[in-house]
Amino acid sequence: LVVTDFDHTTLRPNRVIFSGIQPTGIPHLGNYLGAIKHWVKLQNKPGDIYYSIVDLHSLTIPKSRTFMRTSILDITACLLACEINPERAVLYQQSCVPEHTLLSWVIGCLLTDQTTKLNDFQEKQMPSVDGGGHIGRYTYPLLQTADILLYKATHVPAGDDQAVHLILTNEFAKSFNRTHGHFFPQTQIISDPTFARIRDLRNPTVKMSKSSQSENGRIEITDYDDAIRGKIKRAITDCTSAVTYDPDNRPGVSNLVQIHCGLSDITPTEACNTAQNMDTGAYKTLVANVVIDHLSPIRERYFELRQDENRLKEILKYGNQRAAKVAKENFNAVRDLLGI
Amino acid sequence: LVVTDFDHTTLRPNRVIFSGIQPTGIPHLGNYLGAIKHWVKLQNKPGDIYYSIVDLHSLTIPKSRTFMRTSILDITACLLACEINPERAVLYQQSCVPEHTLLSWVIGCLLTDQTTKLNDFQEKQMPSVDGGGHIGRYTYPLLQTADILLYKATHVPAGDDQAVHLILTNEFAKSFNRTHGHFFPQTQIISDPTFARIRDLRNPTVKMSKSSQSENGRIEITDYDDAIRGKIKRAITDCTSAVTYDPDNRPGVSNLVQIHCGLSDITPTEACNTAQNMDTGAYKTLVANVVIDHLSPIRERYFELRQDENRLKEILKYGNQRAAKVAKENFNAVRDLLGI
Repeated sequence: LVVTDFDHTTLRPNRVIFSGIQPTGIPHLGNYLGAIKHWVKLQNKPGDIYYSIVDLHSLTIPKSRTFMRTSILDITACLLACEINPERAVLYQQSCVPEHTLLSWVIGCLLTDQTTKLNDFQEKQMPSVDGGGHIGRYTYPLLQTADILLYKATHVPAGDDQAVHLILTNEFAKSFNRTHGHFFPQTQIISDPTFARIRDLRNPTVKMSKSSQSENGRIEITDYDDAIRGKIKRAITDCTSAVTYDPDNRPGVSNLVQIHCGLSDITPTEACNTAQNMDTGAYKTLVANVVIDHLSPIRERYFELRQDENRLKEILKYGNQRAAKVAKENFNAVRDLLGI
Repeated sequence: LVVTDFDHTTLRPNRVIFSGIQPTGIPHLGNYLGAIKHWVKLQNKPGDIYYSIVDLHSLTIPKSRTFMRTSILDITACLLACEINPERAVLYQQSCVPEHTLLSWVIGCLLTDQTTKLNDFQEKQMPSVDGGGHIGRYTYPLLQTADILLYKATHVPAGDDQAVHLILTNEFAKSFNRTHGHFFPQTQIISDPTFARIRDLRNPTVKMSKSSQSENGRIEITDYDDAIRGKIKRAITDCTSAVTYDPDNRPGVSNLVQIHCGLSDITPTEACNTAQNMDTGAYKTLVANVVIDHLSPIRERYFELRQDENRLKEILKYGNQRAAKVAKENFNAVRDLLGI
């Protein structure tokens, strides 16, 4: 299921890339190094690209009207500030392309026992009758499958470990194609060797997260220089002063190495060589400077872009129209195959 | 929850009526007397009317492309032949108004334990993990709720016993209104005293149904006169020759009385008075004539209408556009309230 983006021999000429990000606040360094940075790089490679602000997915956990409204504009400005090019990629808001939910309904109707048993969908995500709760939290894999197949995406950028989430998509596509003739492609992960899972600075055993306990655990991509310096200074490391890369035994310092590598496009070995004569304290200063050098221009662009809400809305509207055109075309072909 | 249509004092001036019918073949007499006939009558009453061919619901049970394609045109022609007026009522195809599934997704995200526990939704219709199967079969009550609320329907024509199906809709509407201010109305059943549940002619203990074992158990509204006469002649009755109305003890003959009443707009007492000097055989002839008088002009119109597929498609397109206008307006208001 996984190809690396550098393995051009396995890439079809007409590749279609889909990825989504939830509008749930300013992205942090984990989001940046785990997704956004790779989205930007993919723009220089061949293929059609769809980057979706998946607001329908973020409704599965209730949020206020103000939060949603603000977050959609925040994330749009962030993506543009990170140099997503809305002329190159189709940058759009999921809920403005209603074919996502139409296709999701169709998938729910056509999915068979067979398909649902194939991955952890059934065990983990379908509601236990006692558990109750919000139904969207259980049916979101159908919408995810629709997100990808609506554009006939051949590739999804993600870490190798995400391949499991494509099983439902690919099995559904196969089963649909068996009945209706070849229509949906199989979707692969595009993995990038520099994909990094950044950890919480205050608790390096868990992923950096929007919901982490301490604000000092995460660096938001719009953080000011002083805040970045302070957070990295306070990052939990261990009693060894040398800088080595050993995620299992030295998660704290290895997390700093990963941040360093992700932003500088170097390997852990190269990073450790650079830090050969430094103790952890000095290395923290180096990493803080790398982060600041990388994020401060993003922050400047963000604040400029964020001021002009009408322009952001126009950019989304443009992307919505481009996405809707393809979505409608593909869904109409599905309608035709189903006879509706 | 229930009002009778004649109780005008309880009707709001701006009532909105919604009802749906699945495109699953030619309607039978049970569909006609249980739904279509009342739809036609409601056209002479005040209020906006939406009659939807709910093709998305019929996808919950797999059907062939040809069957779906044919059935949508069949049901359109049938409704027109029964004198649904597409200028008066908005007659449209559900899947052509994508806001149905968008609102259904939103409802799934906002529904709480509280709401799902309120009716038999949770127990009967949510998937048992072991049961598996098509997910649409379990989530359709969300789509049903969306169907009704998308047009802010105040009334749904149905038998009194259907009131239970509105509990989810009304509880969701209340809970949405609590958070977002008054937006969705409460929906009531419009019950008509002549609502009739017609039973299978060959097995009068069950409802007349498309899936019944014997074709002789149901009369389709396009059946030829001879077929109607033959089916009613072969209808199961009992050994008593007098015509009385006693559904519990004499389901067969009472079913014939109900057909007679439904088509002639008379009461069971009036029907039995008419049949005072008849045995069951003679009464069957009378009922067959009533059915033929009623259905033969419908059949003639049906065959004429069904020939012109382009006209049928145009009529649906017109309805789709009218429905989409209101659906878009109402869903955009929901979007605004949610901040998406």
